[in-house]
Amino acid sequence: MSIITLTTDFGTKDHFVGAVKGAIYSELPDAKIVDITHHISPFNITETAYILKNSYKSFPDGTIHIVGVDSELSDDNKHIALELDNHYFICPDNGLICMITKDIKPAKIVEINIHDRVESSFPVLDVFVQVACFISRGGNLGVIGKEISTYKEMTEIQPKVNQEQNKIIGGVIYIDNYGNVISNISKKLFAEVGKGRDFKITAARYTFSKVMTKYNEIVNTEAKDLRQFDGNRLALFNSAGYLEIAIYRSNLKTVGGASTLLGLGYRDTITIEFL
Amino acid sequence: MSIITLTTDFGTKDHFVGAVKGAIYSELPDAKIVDITHHISPFNITETAYILKNSYKSFPDGTIHIVGVDSELSDDNKHIALELDNHYFICPDNGLICMITKDIKPAKIVEINIHDRVESSFPVLDVFVQVACFISRGGNLGVIGKEISTYKEMTEIQPKVNQEQNKIIGGVIYIDNYGNVISNISKKLFAEVGKGRDFKITAARYTFSKVMTKYNEIVNTEAKDLRQFDGNRLALFNSAGYLEIAIYRSNLKTVGGASTLLGLGYRDTITIEFL
Amino acid sequence: MSIITLTTDFGTKDHFVGAVKGAIYSELPDAKIVDITHHISPFNITETAYILKNSYKSFPDGTIHIVGVDSELSDDNKHIALELDNHYFICPDNGLICMITKDIKPAKIVEINIHDRVESSFPVLDVFVQVACFISRGGNLGVIGKEISTYKEMTEIQPKVNQEQNKIIGGVIYIDNYGNVISNISKKLFAEVGKGRDFKITAARYTFSKVMTKYNEIVNTEAKDLRQFDGNRLALFNSAGYLEIAIYRSNLKTVGGASTLLGLGYRDTITIEFL
Repeated sequence: MSIITLTTDFGTKDHFVGAVKGAIYSELPDAKIVDITHHISPFNITETAYILKNSYKSFPDGTIHIVGVDSELSDDNKHIALELDNHYFICPDNGLICMITKDIKPAKIVEINIHDRVESSFPVLDVFVQVACFISRGGNLGVIGKEISTYKEMTEIQPKVNQEQNKIIGGVIYIDNYGNVISNISKKLFAEVGKGRDFKITAARYTFSKVMTKYNEIVNTEAKDLRQFDGNRLALFNSAGYLEIAIYRSNLKTVGGASTLLGLGYRDTITIEFL
Repeated sequence: MSIITLTTDFGTKDHFVGAVKGAIYSELPDAKIVDITHHISPFNITETAYILKNSYKSFPDGTIHIVGVDSELSDDNKHIALELDNHYFICPDNGLICMITKDIKPAKIVEINIHDRVESSFPVLDVFVQVACFISRGGNLGVIGKEISTYKEMTEIQPKVNQEQNKIIGGVIYIDNYGNVISNISKKLFAEVGKGRDFKITAARYTFSKVMTKYNEIVNTEAKDLRQFDGNRLALFNSAGYLEIAIYRSNLKTVGGASTLLGLGYRDTITIEFL
Repeated sequence: MSIITLTTDFGTKDHFVGAVKGAIYSELPDAKIVDITHHISPFNITETAYILKNSYKSFPDGTIHIVGVDSELSDDNKHIALELDNHYFICPDNGLICMITKDIKPAKIVEINIHDRVESSFPVLDVFVQVACFISRGGNLGVIGKEISTYKEMTEIQPKVNQEQNKIIGGVIYIDNYGNVISNISKKLFAEVGKGRDFKITAARYTFSKVMTKYNEIVNTEAKDLRQFDGNRLALFNSAGYLEIAIYRSNLKTVGGASTLLGLGYRDTITIEFL
């Protein structure tokens, strides 16, 4: 029995998530359903891409991921199912898998064609659940859709490297629960372009010349009280492997986090110059 | 093994939900517990009624629904258990099942009488969990309560139809995660009263002469970029079958949703005039 | 198969919780994972202590509790695993179990020593999950850590009793979903010091001479409409056994709760004088 994960912008107050889970259990009494998140900002494809990339790979092979963000069917927004890195994804074709497919190509993609004649305003319940249960029972993607070879990319999510190969121009793609600001610049790209050179990171009006690997590297080891470092800013490669601008032990709801304290929002530029 | 669902106003920060789940697993190690929501606005019966009606029916027959909203026991607020549409509900008798019982009468209702002598300030943990586990093990409602024949209705939640049968006067009963505003006017009532006539819907200072069946019906199909329609307002029958006033692709936390942009709050009037 | 619970300050938007669950299911396909909460205020040890104390004991013996709050490894913040009251806890040694260990001493404590050479910025995923799966498979704590005999206490969380034994000086340790304000003064301490004497509770500029056992004790039983008591303030021993200052049927997001209406925040003093 496959695990079925849910990633949506439904929130957890409305009946949507409960209805989806009930429908899955009605078809598959032994289903194991795991919430990745239901708190994607409404219709935000970039956030979804980041969350998916960093959560799916912890799950065992064969896991089925239902992604319900901006999933209303239209000519411009088809429903697709993908086999990718030994996982299955059921989602709209709006670019939300682009951070995974950048590195790993799908083994198979189909455009789902099991939609009823009646138009649905709740496709995750009416369509994606059926597809997930079908896959979970061992069904072949070809039965519920027509094989296709292309899918939407989202190029604006990728950082750029200048021609001289001494500058990476990235941007903010996610702000986490602590208010820390995450860029689209990966440790891998940093190493490839930087080749060990010194560097200067610029984010808003702040610069950093060191990237840490854990938050408390900022702490002077001779210090008696770690709390004196609370509120210091730092750059690090986070556990997902992306460059993050953080405030040490921040609290977004009280003193603020990197996003509010440093004035860094979605799509703001973060650059690395190699010296 | 029945599924046990939880619908409460506990929030997800406090220990309440964890304590309830631990107690269920202690009695029923193989229980399958599903959160409908824990984010009902504190003590809000109308919201609870809407959420329950639209989530319970996705679950398989025999599912046991624990509802913990305004559930402290008093002479005025008894605890009841119902068998209804092949589901079980354990809840206070405060009207929160009224949107289900409007269409489907309970097969059996009991007033729960297993309360200890010691007064409890956490009845969901101390009483409802025991009842749910008892039912899950196949127990008969008659053992944990005294059969009764009436329960509290909540008439103010129902829309009114004028004598001339050309006007439905409804109200806002729910605001969803996207800020969309949901009325108590069902598609069924609309069809029964309207009989195919033209109509004018009035909500705050806005009127609508068309009800859509999916959000992106608002989009001109010749348009190249769907985003130009973001922020347009529309009326539709939502997936739950209720008249909803929505903003296309709204975000309550940034640009705002229908509730904030159109100035529509709980209990505000929404009317349909048939022409 | 043990239950594994999760108590963190990760929030439920980011990929952290999903990644942790995926990792557990990858090792233990039949794991039963229960979220206690992911909404601890960032790095807040006192909140964590309160939540843990009041949730763990509902779970069956043998349950494994992963606690991820301020868990980055440092010389000052070791990772430990405890056997305590027939439960297992995997957590940083920062005092967060102090409200449990005040009454019940651990049977065994080890300092976890399975960390890889590579420093991790996500120890819950990289370390705690491995330890939990190891314990779940019946592993002995001694294999994944070195036995130790001491752990950090957090004395500031305990109320004080004056020398004359006629005054308890406590403080606010938690504010719940309804805005109710919870102190560190337990019913047990109140009884031990008070010995049945009359008393006066002072919180901000309010005093109380009665402690209720359920919220609606405030309601005059001859009243026809309970709602006339909405907004009244009261002191009660809550279901967790701690002195709580509450507003009857409050809503923190609309009219406000005890914390906002009475002006009571974290660490504010609450005293009981016995007369």
